[in-house]
Amino acid sequence: MIPLGGLGEFGMNCMALRWQDDIIVIDAGLMFPEEELLGVDIVVPDISYLTENRSKVKAILLTHGHEDHIGGLPWILSELNVPVYGTEFTLALVEGKLDEHRLLDDADLIEMLPGKRFQIGPFTIQPIRVTHSLVDCVALAIHTPVGTVLHTGDFKIDLAPPDGKAFDLQAFADLGKDGGILALLQDSTNVDRPGWTPGEKAVRPRLDEIFGQTKKKLFFSCFSSSITRIGLAFELAQKHGRKVAVVGRSMDNATEIAQDLGYLKVPQGLVIQPGQMRDFPAEKLLVMISGTQGEPMSALSRAAVNNHKFAKIESGDTVLMSSRVIPGNEKAIYRVIDHLERRDANVIHDDGTNGLIHVSGHGSQEELKLIINLVQPKFVVPVHGDYRHLKRHAELAMATSVPQKAVLAEDGDVLEFTKDSVTKNGKITIGRICIDSGGSIDVVEDVVIRDRKHLSEDGIVLPIIAINKATGRAEGTPEIVFRGFAMDDAQLIAEARAITQRTLESSSPEEKQDYGVIKEKIRNDLKRFIQKSTSRRPLIMPVILEI
Amino acid sequence: MIPLGGLGEFGMNCMALRWQDDIIVIDAGLMFPEEELLGVDIVVPDISYLTENRSKVKAILLTHGHEDHIGGLPWILSELNVPVYGTEFTLALVEGKLDEHRLLDDADLIEMLPGKRFQIGPFTIQPIRVTHSLVDCVALAIHTPVGTVLHTGDFKIDLAPPDGKAFDLQAFADLGKDGGILALLQDSTNVDRPGWTPGEKAVRPRLDEIFGQTKKKLFFSCFSSSITRIGLAFELAQKHGRKVAVVGRSMDNATEIAQDLGYLKVPQGLVIQPGQMRDFPAEKLLVMISGTQGEPMSALSRAAVNNHKFAKIESGDTVLMSSRVIPGNEKAIYRVIDHLERRDANVIHDDGTNGLIHVSGHGSQEELKLIINLVQPKFVVPVHGDYRHLKRHAELAMATSVPQKAVLAEDGDVLEFTKDSVTKNGKITIGRICIDSGGSIDVVEDVVIRDRKHLSEDGIVLPIIAINKATGRAEGTPEIVFRGFAMDDAQLIAEARAITQRTLESSSPEEKQDYGVIKEKIRNDLKRFIQKSTSRRPLIMPVILEI
Repeated sequence: MIPLGGLGEFGMNCMALRWQDDIIVIDAGLMFPEEELLGVDIVVPDISYLTENRSKVKAILLTHGHEDHIGGLPWILSELNVPVYGTEFTLALVEGKLDEHRLLDDADLIEMLPGKRFQIGPFTIQPIRVTHSLVDCVALAIHTPVGTVLHTGDFKIDLAPPDGKAFDLQAFADLGKDGGILALLQDSTNVDRPGWTPGEKAVRPRLDEIFGQTKKKLFFSCFSSSITRIGLAFELAQKHGRKVAVVGRSMDNATEIAQDLGYLKVPQGLVIQPGQMRDFPAEKLLVMISGTQGEPMSALSRAAVNNHKFAKIESGDTVLMSSRVIPGNEKAIYRVIDHLERRDANVIHDDGTNGLIHVSGHGSQEELKLIINLVQPKFVVPVHGDYRHLKRHAELAMATSVPQKAVLAEDGDVLEFTKDSVTKNGKITIGRICIDSGGSIDVVEDVVIRDRKHLSEDGIVLPIIAINKATGRAEGTPEIVFRGFAMDDAQLIAEARAITQRTLESSSPEEKQDYGVIKEKIRNDLKRFIQKSTSRRPLIMPVILEI
Repeated sequence: MIPLGGLGEFGMNCMALRWQDDIIVIDAGLMFPEEELLGVDIVVPDISYLTENRSKVKAILLTHGHEDHIGGLPWILSELNVPVYGTEFTLALVEGKLDEHRLLDDADLIEMLPGKRFQIGPFTIQPIRVTHSLVDCVALAIHTPVGTVLHTGDFKIDLAPPDGKAFDLQAFADLGKDGGILALLQDSTNVDRPGWTPGEKAVRPRLDEIFGQTKKKLFFSCFSSSITRIGLAFELAQKHGRKVAVVGRSMDNATEIAQDLGYLKVPQGLVIQPGQMRDFPAEKLLVMISGTQGEPMSALSRAAVNNHKFAKIESGDTVLMSSRVIPGNEKAIYRVIDHLERRDANVIHDDGTNGLIHVSGHGSQEELKLIINLVQPKFVVPVHGDYRHLKRHAELAMATSVPQKAVLAEDGDVLEFTKDSVTKNGKITIGRICIDSGGSIDVVEDVVIRDRKHLSEDGIVLPIIAINKATGRAEGTPEIVFRGFAMDDAQLIAEARAITQRTLESSSPEEKQDYGVIKEKIRNDLKRFIQKSTSRRPLIMPVILEI
């Protein structure tokens, strides 16, 4: 068992299992970059271990469709084209993603059904239905020559899931019979939370109340993959007589796929086009909008600085953020909230004072302990978390007195199992690949994502811009430093400077005061220009000089 | 009334009051820069309004000694030398600060005593004792020709303060007689918290318990200005038979000043030198250590990556962080905690599951309402907070039905008061000045801090370093870009490169994996080298290329 990502960080989950000459991979996730990684869109695990054992890799198995479990697929498949197994909804999300990168035609996507076993070399795979904040999620019981390995994927135990598809407790209990399983790989996300995570339906009363009290426009933001949450918002809109406009690319995509597959049932006439909003009075509108994490180019971030074509947030409107603050995004989110408050919107977010407007999709301590008790593992390997979460989870597992041992492993550790033992045996090459996914968000690229190492060989461009924070004015002309190419090309430099200047001039003072937004705009515009005029795709890292 | 800082952000608190040709200034704080502001040590308010009205500025009045209230003084005094009023402890902190910048000899520091009124032009100043997480704090009642303005400073209402110096409720109540005061300027920090903030003594039982349970070395970290918290740790060390070593510059300074002034009573023989730690068994040691906020160069950050000369954190040691996470510092703090967990230390921090190990120094909603009820203001002007805090505070104030009006003002707004009205009358120039305080942390500079605008005129240096996150190795040789000077000086560039290379080589993989730390080290070393060889002090902004 070799973790390639997700053990020692949140995101880019990826785990390899090997028996002699067969390797299977569980999940292929991405991670969003830290602020320090200027010029990068996404981060994925280094898969050298897999490419060096290319002929042995037989399949990638997906537990569910969240980005931290499937987002690295385009990158991995472009290096290593193997069959990909997933449930119907997961594969639908994967299809869209691969299509964007022109990888769909060559991909071999195979649907798996919860409860239905299948064989890959020496491994018998048994997908088991679990509940989570997304639909159609599974845990994977993998029966191997030395025993059964159970990977929970992401889960909570929702005893009344909105889609009526129950967490398969019986299958878990069956695994625990006759001495139990060899190893449990379990989600550590909420290991710090005592008790049980509330079910998804628990948010209904408070959201219903907010829908009932809102006088003017209601903007509703949640993770775009939270199909049941979106479904609930649609249902409440219908109940309270509001038409629904969907704004933002990710929200748009997710609702479309969910409708196509029947996960989202939308009454005729409920949804209107964003352009039609002006035909309805404010109190008759619900705007579903992407951007709960303060992503600089998201619809909500742009609406907050009054720079969205359709989503106009006005005094007295309500913005309901039915989501949590992902650690690290605090500043970006609070910047958006401050902008919204300045527009005199009523912002309702999950700060502990607004009632139950969001529930987590991850199991708390009692749920983790219940699974351990159900499946009776000899060994527990905590997955999905920073080092401290894995450590806490190992302590929690040992306190149940079920496992012989909880194994604190990190990315790259090689864990060798026999029927009754586990040893750490060396370390493989691991790492994070920083990727520039190419192009602006509106353009589908025919070039596949390329990693940072290659990009830096294409040179580096540093636009240096002086901004006055108080006024939101750019001062002087931007400086552009080219390294690795075009260093003496006065004309190119002058043009790049002019492009940057234009981007600055076309941006509002509020956008320029929000460095995340202005950096991203400059990066997108310069990227397009440099690619067109030089065919190069350098790393572009804007530097803001606040003066 | 003209707010120059702190209304619309946390930090750099600064408020001007003007009556005809007399201006007084309340507080002169700094703010720590956002991550985006590479190459900057501190941020202070733009004081153009004061320098343009130089002859009218009569005094700076300090409410207490926290950095966000006094940290901008060196900068302001170097531009505008006026008398500074503060309580004994506050002035002691100011003295140290001014001495460092060689500004002390020219400074005019005047002690104020709680309860003792004094006159500055048309203003009668009445300092009133309040309680907070620091000692010797005051609110300022300023009696003006149109009525009394009360600035609370930072406060909570601690009804049993450890130093026995009570919050002067009577003085507040007196202000509320006969129609009450004109305007209340009140601290918004905790406006989101319902109820009352617990008193400082509330942490004692749980800390005592932790001291009692700890088997090996105990590392104790808190804000270095929290003198009473430090005093409590010393007391518990004495009780539980541990010697105390103080590690880290800020912790060292604060304890020294507090002892000199009698705020901290240390039994003979309790404190040992850091170098003596090796002479005592682990279970007999308490290490007071700076760095609760994950500051990259702090003692705790360095100890966490095993790079501190004296503070060695070993398996089974306990690290107790008796402080809160200041918003924006989450990532840095959790990085330090992860490093500590990897050393197998037992980390106890304020995540809600560890009992009452920290209490806030700022009043909650009921305390804010109590003050409003006591002083009966006609107008409430919320201060100290992001826009959303000020807005929430205004709503809270209006809900008490005491004030005629809560005024939502931001930095730069000019508020004109009569005896019974307030109007916003224009906006003055405001802004944030980004300052490089010069030199490494060990060297006292004779050059005064200089602002970013001037620095950028001295040129910009961008060291570009490629680091492999997984291994912590730097790949290739660093690139150095000079702008504004020495652009073609091949020798200087080669030397700068060699310096950077040396810094990288002398840093541990853990330090290189922590970009905050490695950036700061490179910046310090390059700064020293460039200053020595060119006498210039350019902006130095390291760029990390993760590969």
